[in-house]
Amino acid sequence: MRTSQLYLNTLKEAPSEAELTSHKLMVRAGLIKKLGSGLYTWMPLGMRVLRKVEEIVRDEMNAAGAQELLMPTIQPAELWQETGRWALFGPQMLKIKDRHERDFCFGPTHEEVITDIARSELRSYKQLPVNMYQVQVKFRDEIRPRFGVMRAREFVMKDAYSFDADFAGLQVSYGKMYTAYSNIFTRLGLKFRAVAADTGAIGGDGSHEFQVLADAGEDILAYAPDSDFAANVELAEALAPTTPRAAPAEAMRDIDTPKQTTCEAVAELMGVGIERTVKLIALVGGEAEEFFVVLLRGDHTLNEVKLAKAVGGEFRFATEEEIRAVFNCPPGFLGPIGLDTDNISVIADRSVAVMSDFVCGANKPKFHIAGVNFGRDLPEPNAVADIRNVVSGDPSPDGKGKLELCRGIEVGHIFQLRTKYSEAMNATYVAEDGQPKFFEMGCYGIGVSRIVAAAIEQNYDERGIIFTQAMAPFALAVVAVGYHRSEAVKTAADQLYADLKAAGVDVLLDDRNERPGSMFADMELIGIPHRITIGDKGLADGLVEYVARAGGEMQKIALADAVSFARKQLA
Amino acid sequence: MRTSQLYLNTLKEAPSEAELTSHKLMVRAGLIKKLGSGLYTWMPLGMRVLRKVEEIVRDEMNAAGAQELLMPTIQPAELWQETGRWALFGPQMLKIKDRHERDFCFGPTHEEVITDIARSELRSYKQLPVNMYQVQVKFRDEIRPRFGVMRAREFVMKDAYSFDADFAGLQVSYGKMYTAYSNIFTRLGLKFRAVAADTGAIGGDGSHEFQVLADAGEDILAYAPDSDFAANVELAEALAPTTPRAAPAEAMRDIDTPKQTTCEAVAELMGVGIERTVKLIALVGGEAEEFFVVLLRGDHTLNEVKLAKAVGGEFRFATEEEIRAVFNCPPGFLGPIGLDTDNISVIADRSVAVMSDFVCGANKPKFHIAGVNFGRDLPEPNAVADIRNVVSGDPSPDGKGKLELCRGIEVGHIFQLRTKYSEAMNATYVAEDGQPKFFEMGCYGIGVSRIVAAAIEQNYDERGIIFTQAMAPFALAVVAVGYHRSEAVKTAADQLYADLKAAGVDVLLDDRNERPGSMFADMELIGIPHRITIGDKGLADGLVEYVARAGGEMQKIALADAVSFARKQLA
Repeated sequence: MRTSQLYLNTLKEAPSEAELTSHKLMVRAGLIKKLGSGLYTWMPLGMRVLRKVEEIVRDEMNAAGAQELLMPTIQPAELWQETGRWALFGPQMLKIKDRHERDFCFGPTHEEVITDIARSELRSYKQLPVNMYQVQVKFRDEIRPRFGVMRAREFVMKDAYSFDADFAGLQVSYGKMYTAYSNIFTRLGLKFRAVAADTGAIGGDGSHEFQVLADAGEDILAYAPDSDFAANVELAEALAPTTPRAAPAEAMRDIDTPKQTTCEAVAELMGVGIERTVKLIALVGGEAEEFFVVLLRGDHTLNEVKLAKAVGGEFRFATEEEIRAVFNCPPGFLGPIGLDTDNISVIADRSVAVMSDFVCGANKPKFHIAGVNFGRDLPEPNAVADIRNVVSGDPSPDGKGKLELCRGIEVGHIFQLRTKYSEAMNATYVAEDGQPKFFEMGCYGIGVSRIVAAAIEQNYDERGIIFTQAMAPFALAVVAVGYHRSEAVKTAADQLYADLKAAGVDVLLDDRNERPGSMFADMELIGIPHRITIGDKGLADGLVEYVARAGGEMQKIALADAVSFARKQLA
Repeated sequence: MRTSQLYLNTLKEAPSEAELTSHKLMVRAGLIKKLGSGLYTWMPLGMRVLRKVEEIVRDEMNAAGAQELLMPTIQPAELWQETGRWALFGPQMLKIKDRHERDFCFGPTHEEVITDIARSELRSYKQLPVNMYQVQVKFRDEIRPRFGVMRAREFVMKDAYSFDADFAGLQVSYGKMYTAYSNIFTRLGLKFRAVAADTGAIGGDGSHEFQVLADAGEDILAYAPDSDFAANVELAEALAPTTPRAAPAEAMRDIDTPKQTTCEAVAELMGVGIERTVKLIALVGGEAEEFFVVLLRGDHTLNEVKLAKAVGGEFRFATEEEIRAVFNCPPGFLGPIGLDTDNISVIADRSVAVMSDFVCGANKPKFHIAGVNFGRDLPEPNAVADIRNVVSGDPSPDGKGKLELCRGIEVGHIFQLRTKYSEAMNATYVAEDGQPKFFEMGCYGIGVSRIVAAAIEQNYDERGIIFTQAMAPFALAVVAVGYHRSEAVKTAADQLYADLKAAGVDVLLDDRNERPGSMFADMELIGIPHRITIGDKGLADGLVEYVARAGGEMQKIALADAVSFARKQLA
């Protein structure tokens, strides 16, 4: 396409409400335009990107044996009442009355509709497995839509649903989707991780999130650079240290800490590493309201999900009043020494359990104690468990190298729903033994429009977006400097453009009558990954210039070789 | 694809509520499935058809220089209030309140949104012309949705909007869309006509409907088989007869018509052609309530649109009381003789004006008169005009051959909106002279999902759908008879399937373990245009069978030639 034919409208300034880089850049590049709160038009340039993402998604879904269908966006309330989600979904669901005052919603997701289809269409085990998907606009009435298309109210989603005869079948279907998703994000050229995740509101058993790695992400992930391991930081296991506890070497002694109420401050005062300190957290658990404490290394943080699992139930933080009643000491100076361990359970994190000669609170105001040892100065903990968040440098739970932490943006989510929906909606098939059985279901979502924003969060610089080739609105820009005043430039540019198109290159010829700087800036802002510049000066020597958007030196190449050169760059 | 991998679920019986053939066949073939009133899921087989239509639409829109975008389906009420259509659109528009109780609608069309985009994005004449389109789900809350996807509430539409600097530009943009639409329907393989049309609710000046010809159509069209002329029957001009009026040859005489109150009955009684009779229709026009009459040939019908134009205003049919007051005679025996033509205007259709020796009512009960002549027996009419509907055999208004009548289904509509929306929303650009000017707009719709139903209405038989190659879910079916019991059939079928796929043929291999008759019936029902059958008997002689869905003899062809044969059929 020629820029003169393309609807291109870039802006110098981003709207003041845009907080996120991707939001700013998408508006400035003219990919999207706001219609209302959480409502965006995908302008022609953005639409090219969106459709490229869509087509890769379709391609991999089809390759995985899923079949595309299209369900209505408007769904009858009755189906949602069957699963109880009409009430549960809350105000995020856009509820609608039609002209006959019947209740409908603008579908935020389609489990109910697809299960309704399955229970009338899929009658026999012979028809299974089936996986159906759609690429569709969804609506979720976010209370505070923001971040552009990252958290819009109306957005494009790919949602797929699998139906299997049994759990083993579901696992096969789930595995195919896991692979398809990995293929999709790989083909899109994104750095991503599939992480084990909580299932959240959709319900069911196993689940993975696909996270595009980007500093602006809301989720913190732990991953192993040397392996496929990745998990939401809340779920990653902190392995037990392999080195055993050293024998006590120091005598216990009080440390005067008049103002030091944190491990950091105490370690700094003492001139020791914070990993030599232990902090105590006082908690109250269960219906019986039992007071208990946990011990963590000073540089670690409590993982409440893990602790809840370790204690087998819910708990809350103790109030200052409760703490003073037990310790007769204000928070900031608490420690495990002298505790009534017959009545107060002590749970130590795995890292704490192997410590010796450590520093902790003295249970008297303005004092800590150093040289503390389990067995000698206080009893062994009642329990040792993994109750902390992993940190960068922890060994990877899969035994392959060390963990790193990063932020991610969730762009895909796959769930093993099991029989949650089929039971609620009485969706059965006739099994091989002639008996009706509930479908084993999976559901698989991709935020198609969100991918574009996430990709930009991962790849941009001060000049604008850096699209990967698979997602770029055009793979290559030919910038013709002086197209409107130099016959030589015009002839060469038109010919190169025609040759590139004939070679199957997705090329944009910038044939505008603009200053070179402004043309370059536009091509950089909108993120075209490759650029060839044609100008009078180079042409005199039969040369054009090539530069990659992602960086690297500008190269002079022979005009005659430009097509083959470009094809090599794009390969 | 293999049938064993395809979600295929055909039905013997159509739902009882389905009135239209296309509705019945689409449900039976498993193309669509009902979710609720006017809400249909496009099942995988139907989705293949829908996406083929979509892609042809996109391809031709892009080729015409239009650019795809995607506007939100949910639109703020404020924009619709600017044009006044929030109130005007009525209950067909699905109105919605979001969680903050703000008013929105599920867009039935997008003139307001695109005009809002234009007024902020298109600032200079240098940016014009622009044509943008989207392929999107729309919702119109039909009071009685029926006919399946033909008149569904939720449907897929392609809507395009053009912005030009002046009317001449609009006409160019309009012409491009006219051509693009013609290309689309031609490529889809449909018999269609572009007809001049009234603009209806969308407003503006020029407009054409694109009608797929089918007996089930709601609209009646007049078209010239020898030319491009086509018009809605209400709008086609009935040319004035070229033969002049013959001189009177008969004397006036009363005809005893005791029970004959229609021209048909009188002509039958007299044994003359009905085209020798004249009927009088009594009307009351304008605010002044003036009584007037029109004369039509007995075999013609009044065209009220034309008459309103001829009299320059509105009119109504006279009541029997008013008729008796003027004629002193009951309806059924009225004629133009003896009328007080100073006070009662007589408008004759062009066909009547050239008649002589005609038959008409006698203005006395139970009598007609024959041998009546203008000038001799009654004054010349006060006016002669084209006030009738054309009939089959009328000369084409473009002078090329004769008209035929047929029924059509509207699948596309293009409008010259002019400045209706740009004025209402104050959408201007800066013209070359530096002055702000309103955009000249056009809008262009295609009922993408309706096309599928219309195509089926045009092409089906007692065995099911007959898809054109461009729209068929698969171009060619290979039916393997005995795939599961004959190694020879399995080997040959798998090889042919692989070879056809390698040759780029959109092929479906029916590898199910079903009776041959049931496999043939399914392939016929779902409308696959070409079929090759492989069975043990033919294979023994190295032969397979080919048959076209649209008809024609079954042909035996060498298995070795099957790929090249198929490619020729598909070319």
